[in-house]
Amino acid sequence: MLISFEGIDGSGKSTQARLLADALAARGQQVRRVREPGGADLPERVRTLLLDPALAIADRAELLLFSAARAQLVEEVIRPALASGETVIADRFYDSTTAYQGGGRGLADEAWLDAFHGFVTGGLAPARTYCIDVPLAVASRRRAGEQADRMEASGDAFYQRVRMAYLALAARQPKRIVVLDGTLSPEALHEQILADLDAFA
Amino acid sequence: MLISFEGIDGSGKSTQARLLADALAARGQQVRRVREPGGADLPERVRTLLLDPALAIADRAELLLFSAARAQLVEEVIRPALASGETVIADRFYDSTTAYQGGGRGLADEAWLDAFHGFVTGGLAPARTYCIDVPLAVASRRRAGEQADRMEASGDAFYQRVRMAYLALAARQPKRIVVLDGTLSPEALHEQILADLDAFA
Repeated sequence: MLISFEGIDGSGKSTQARLLADALAARGQQVRRVREPGGADLPERVRTLLLDPALAIADRAELLLFSAARAQLVEEVIRPALASGETVIADRFYDSTTAYQGGGRGLADEAWLDAFHGFVTGGLAPARTYCIDVPLAVASRRRAGEQADRMEASGDAFYQRVRMAYLALAARQPKRIVVLDGTLSPEALHEQILADLDAFA
Repeated sequence: MLISFEGIDGSGKSTQARLLADALAARGQQVRRVREPGGADLPERVRTLLLDPALAIADRAELLLFSAARAQLVEEVIRPALASGETVIADRFYDSTTAYQGGGRGLADEAWLDAFHGFVTGGLAPARTYCIDVPLAVASRRRAGEQADRMEASGDAFYQRVRMAYLALAARQPKRIVVLDGTLSPEALHEQILADLDAFA
């Protein structure tokens, strides 16, 4: 089973991905965690390009680079892991592209992106997606003190569009995407996620 | 005006792109030559990934990387050049993706790729495309002695599919794509191209 975590930078999704992976592993499941962009040789090299603040990257090129990294990750890591019975927990998957490049950058509409993601992943979709929603002020506070990478330097108006795009996407696909209140404590959020997954699986 | 040159590696298209650029420049036109993948910072860095024989690249990731490089080249170089009245001569453009990844790798169909290329380039199409066709044996002989990069190491069956895909594409878009006999001398080919362009423009 493929489970993905989504949300703006500073939402707490990486913490939740880790907590869920640990909880499932403690139950004896084989768990593989992946993060995007990255997780294999080519995706890590694409990640270096994407986060380089000195590099000019057009919006469409950005969308295509994230998707190239994803296509490789699916082929090289996720599909083999799923085939051998592992649970894969992804810190970001294609909903990030819909929210960041579709919503944030204003590129392409959701219907086109749905079909495009189908090509990129060869038709692989997450069984369950946890979208952790936080107000921008909370996310900014959590990111304070970290060096901003190229994506994070995009500004508040951008992040507000990304947040709204996530909420619109979740409203459109309520059976797959669960929106959670990221202002809760990590422990409370983790309990909600575990309860949802047990009810779902 | 955007003019593209297409063909398998060793077809002689780069020579023809240069001869045409020189001829137009000699007539006083402002000419910009670009080659794919490459032509700006990000595309050159993507090129390095694509041609690295040591890097595992899934077919879909390959298609997306070539397209990312193209999207950046269009935005950063080709559109500004066209806007300032230059003639742009491209050594490869999106027909290469249709032929190499669509035909050679067997990825996606032409209708899907047509729509996808429209996204990648923001709707920019070449006014005229010269597709230089040569038998595989001729192309291989011309490439002999060069170190094969990752793409060129794909083998004869692959190149045969690419060649057939080019011919099928030209048959589908005869108003834009001109197929030329690449076994002619470079001078004879150049004369044909110049005559066609003068009749077309």
